[in-house]
Amino acid sequence: MKVKTDVLVIGGSAAGVVAATTGKSFYPDKKFLVLRKDKEVLVPCGIPYIFGSLDNSEKNLISDAILSDNDIQLKIDEAISIDQNDKICKTSDGTDIIFEKLILATGSSPVKPKWLKGGHLQNVFTIPKDKVVIDDILTKLKDCNKVVVIGGGFIGVEMADEINKRIKNVTIVEILPHILSIPFDDELAIRAEEVLASRGIKIKTGDGIKEVLGTEKVEGVLLNDGSKLEADAVILAMGYTPNILLAEKAGLKTCSEGFICVDEYMRTSNPDILAVGDCAEKKSFLTQQQRGYMLASTACSEARVASMNLYKLSALKTFTGTIAMFCTALGDIGFGAAGLTEKMAIERGFEIVTGTFEGVDKHPGTLPGAHKQIVKLIATKESGVIIGGEVIGGTGTGELINLIGVAIENHMLIISILTAQIATHPLLTAPPTAYPIIKAAEIITKKRRNLI
Amino acid sequence: MKVKTDVLVIGGSAAGVVAATTGKSFYPDKKFLVLRKDKEVLVPCGIPYIFGSLDNSEKNLISDAILSDNDIQLKIDEAISIDQNDKICKTSDGTDIIFEKLILATGSSPVKPKWLKGGHLQNVFTIPKDKVVIDDILTKLKDCNKVVVIGGGFIGVEMADEINKRIKNVTIVEILPHILSIPFDDELAIRAEEVLASRGIKIKTGDGIKEVLGTEKVEGVLLNDGSKLEADAVILAMGYTPNILLAEKAGLKTCSEGFICVDEYMRTSNPDILAVGDCAEKKSFLTQQQRGYMLASTACSEARVASMNLYKLSALKTFTGTIAMFCTALGDIGFGAAGLTEKMAIERGFEIVTGTFEGVDKHPGTLPGAHKQIVKLIATKESGVIIGGEVIGGTGTGELINLIGVAIENHMLIISILTAQIATHPLLTAPPTAYPIIKAAEIITKKRRNLI
Repeated sequence: MKVKTDVLVIGGSAAGVVAATTGKSFYPDKKFLVLRKDKEVLVPCGIPYIFGSLDNSEKNLISDAILSDNDIQLKIDEAISIDQNDKICKTSDGTDIIFEKLILATGSSPVKPKWLKGGHLQNVFTIPKDKVVIDDILTKLKDCNKVVVIGGGFIGVEMADEINKRIKNVTIVEILPHILSIPFDDELAIRAEEVLASRGIKIKTGDGIKEVLGTEKVEGVLLNDGSKLEADAVILAMGYTPNILLAEKAGLKTCSEGFICVDEYMRTSNPDILAVGDCAEKKSFLTQQQRGYMLASTACSEARVASMNLYKLSALKTFTGTIAMFCTALGDIGFGAAGLTEKMAIERGFEIVTGTFEGVDKHPGTLPGAHKQIVKLIATKESGVIIGGEVIGGTGTGELINLIGVAIENHMLIISILTAQIATHPLLTAPPTAYPIIKAAEIITKKRRNLI
Repeated sequence: MKVKTDVLVIGGSAAGVVAATTGKSFYPDKKFLVLRKDKEVLVPCGIPYIFGSLDNSEKNLISDAILSDNDIQLKIDEAISIDQNDKICKTSDGTDIIFEKLILATGSSPVKPKWLKGGHLQNVFTIPKDKVVIDDILTKLKDCNKVVVIGGGFIGVEMADEINKRIKNVTIVEILPHILSIPFDDELAIRAEEVLASRGIKIKTGDGIKEVLGTEKVEGVLLNDGSKLEADAVILAMGYTPNILLAEKAGLKTCSEGFICVDEYMRTSNPDILAVGDCAEKKSFLTQQQRGYMLASTACSEARVASMNLYKLSALKTFTGTIAMFCTALGDIGFGAAGLTEKMAIERGFEIVTGTFEGVDKHPGTLPGAHKQIVKLIATKESGVIIGGEVIGGTGTGELINLIGVAIENHMLIISILTAQIATHPLLTAPPTAYPIIKAAEIITKKRRNLI
C-alpha cells in the first residue's frame, strides 16, 4: 500500500508529538503523519512515578487526542527502512509512506551492558519507555522485598525514591563518589543523599556492579569491591543509548557519540530529513563539544526549532546547543541544575567565580511547608557571564532553574540578576531581603571586586 | 549628643535592611547606622498571614541579627529633621547624627480617606506595618463574626482569605468591576474571585464604600449603591501613601504623585541623599510615566541599586523604572503578574498581540496536587518584545512570574521564549510538550504571522 504525506514524523513520544503539533501549527496547509510503534505511549518523565505516586501506568499516558485534535494522522506501525533519495519510508505492515519532509524522533533505549554477567536473570529490569514492559515490572515488583538500583542519576534516584514508598529495602549503587554527580557539585549532591537516607534508602557510592547473582531469578549483586547485596529485584539505571539504526541504514550521517548528526535547524545530512530528541546529536551550548544529555524538555525545544523551520528558515529560531537543564523532586524538595557545574566548568577550562547562598523558600521561614532554598551560581571571572546554576528548595525549584536557564541561554551577566526586579510572596518565594539567587549573585560580584 | 556615621539609613523595613546590608557588603570600610522608630519590625508581606496561617506576629519578625551580624549599628529612635547641607539628622531623643550619605527608606502608611464618615469608629482598621497595631487588631478580631474588607487589591484579598480561616463571614467590597484589577486582565481576575467564592468569601464588585455605620463601634458599612452590609469589623485596604514629610521638610524635591524624586541611582535632589522603597518615586519601566506601585520586592531592588552605587557609580547597575511585578497565593493556588496587562498596554497606546494557554503545573495532570496553569503573555505587535505576563497556577507561580519579569527587564523577544530550553519534571512543572509559557509564545508568534 502507498500512503502520501507532506511531513512524516517517526516516533510518538515527547519530541515526536511536539514536532508534529508545532509543525502543523505553523504549516497548517501541510499534511502531518505520526508513525509510532507502540499502541499507547507513556509520559516519559512520569515513568518513575508509576511505581509510587501514581498507582498504575494508565494515569501516565500521552493522550492521542493531542494529535487528532490538531488534525495530525497517526499510524501505529514500525518503520523498517527509509529511502532518503526517493523519500519513502517502508513499514512492517508493507506500507510505503511517501514524504516531503521526515522528522526522526526515534528516541533511546536503556543500556544493559554486554559485559554484565547475570544481566539475563529474571527480575533484572531496565526502564524503557514502553508501557507493556513497565506494567510487567510493576506487577513483578509487587512480590519483591529487596531492591537494588544500579546508577544514581535521575532515573535511578527517582525510581528508588518511588519504589521506597512501597518496598522498604532499597539500595542505590553509584560508581561515582556521589549520586547526581553530573548535574550537581558535591556539596549539593550530598543534600540529595541526605534526603534519601532520611527515608531509609541505602546509598553505596564509589562502587559499581560487577555481576548479577542468582540462578534463574536474581538473588543479589556482586560489586567491584567484592561486597554482595541481597536483592530480589535489580533495576539497571545505567543510561540510555540513542536509537539510530533506521537512520544509519538509510545512510544518514551519524556522529562518534552514537547520535544522528544535525545542524542548528536539526537537519541531518539530508536537509529534508530532520532528527530531534534522544536520537539527535547534542552539542554543549557553551563549548559546542558533543555531549550525551537526553532530556524530554530539551528534546521538545529541538522539536519546536525543527518544525518551525521545516519549510522556511528563521535566523533567530535556531538550536545552538544543549544547556544541560535538569530538575527532580524528592517529595516536596526540588533539585534543579542548569548549565555547567563548578567542577565541570573548571574541567572545561573556564576561569570562574561561584556564589552560594542558603535561605528559605517562603517568608517568614516560620510558615508551614517552608523549605531551605540553596542557590549556587557559576559565572565567568572576567566578563561575569552566567554559565551555570544549581538550586535546592521547595516546589518552586523547577521554575527557578528555568529562570537561570533563560539567563544562561541569553548570555546574561551576573549584574542582571544582581539588580533584577522580582515578585515575592510569603507563600511562594524567598523574602525580597534575602532572595537566594540575588544573594548568590552578590557574592560573585563581591568576589569579582576582590571584596571577599 | 552627637553621633557620627558614614551612611545613615532611616527606616528598618525591607528597603532599609537591604540598603544597609548591601551597602556594608560593598563598602565594608564604611560605618552604617540604621535609624528605626519601631522596637520590632514585621516582615511586611507576611502581615496578612498573621491573621490565619501564622497564629501570631512573633513568627513574622525581621530579626535584628541581620544587622548585627553584618556589623551595622541600630538605633531605635525617630528622625525629626534633616539638615541636608550640614548633613545632620536630629532624632527625638536629642541626638544629632552626622552622616556622609543618607538613605531614606521611610516607607508608606495606609490610607484612611478624610471624606469617610465613621472612619474613626472602633473596629475600623487599616493595616500599617506596625507590630503594636497589628497585635491589637488580631486581639480585637477574636471577638468578631462579620468582617467587611474594603478594597480588593492584594492586601484586601490576602487579608480576607486569611481572616476567613477563622471567621466565616467575610465580604470584600471592590469599587472596580473585578478584584485584583490592576495586575490582572478581567478573565484572570475572575479566576481569583472564583477561588475566594469557593471558600465562602462574598465579593461585591463595582461598588465602593460611602460611610461606616455605627455609634461607638462599627455596625456596618453603607455602599455607594445604597445597600448596607452588617459588620463588627471593617478593614480598610484602600492603598498606601508614601511617608515623605521628613524629606519635604528637609527641602528635598518631591514629585506630583507624592513621592521623593529620585534618579536612576535612587539619588534625590541632593546626590548624597538617596531614597528607596515606598517613599521613593516610581516610574514605569516601559513608559517612564510616574506610577504608584509599592512593593517590597522592587523596594529591595531599588535599595540594592542605591547602596551599590553609594560611593562609586556603575553604568550597568541602575534602576531604570519599576516593572509592576506581583504574586500572591490563595492557599496553594498562585497568582502572578509582571509588566503591563492587555488592558493597560492598550490604554498606554501599545499595539499588542496576546497569547493565553491553559495547561497543568505537573505532568501527568493525574498526579496528586496538580493545578491548572494558565499563562498569558503580552508582546508588542511589530517587534515582538515581551511587555507583560500573567500566571495562575500552583506554588511554582512565583518563580515563573520572575522568569517572565527577567524577560521583560531584558527586553527579550517572544522568540526567546518560543525556543527556550527548559527543565521539566513531573512533580515540579508543566509537561515539556505543552509548557504553558511556550505555548502562549507560540500563539503570539502565529498571530504575528497571521496564521490565526
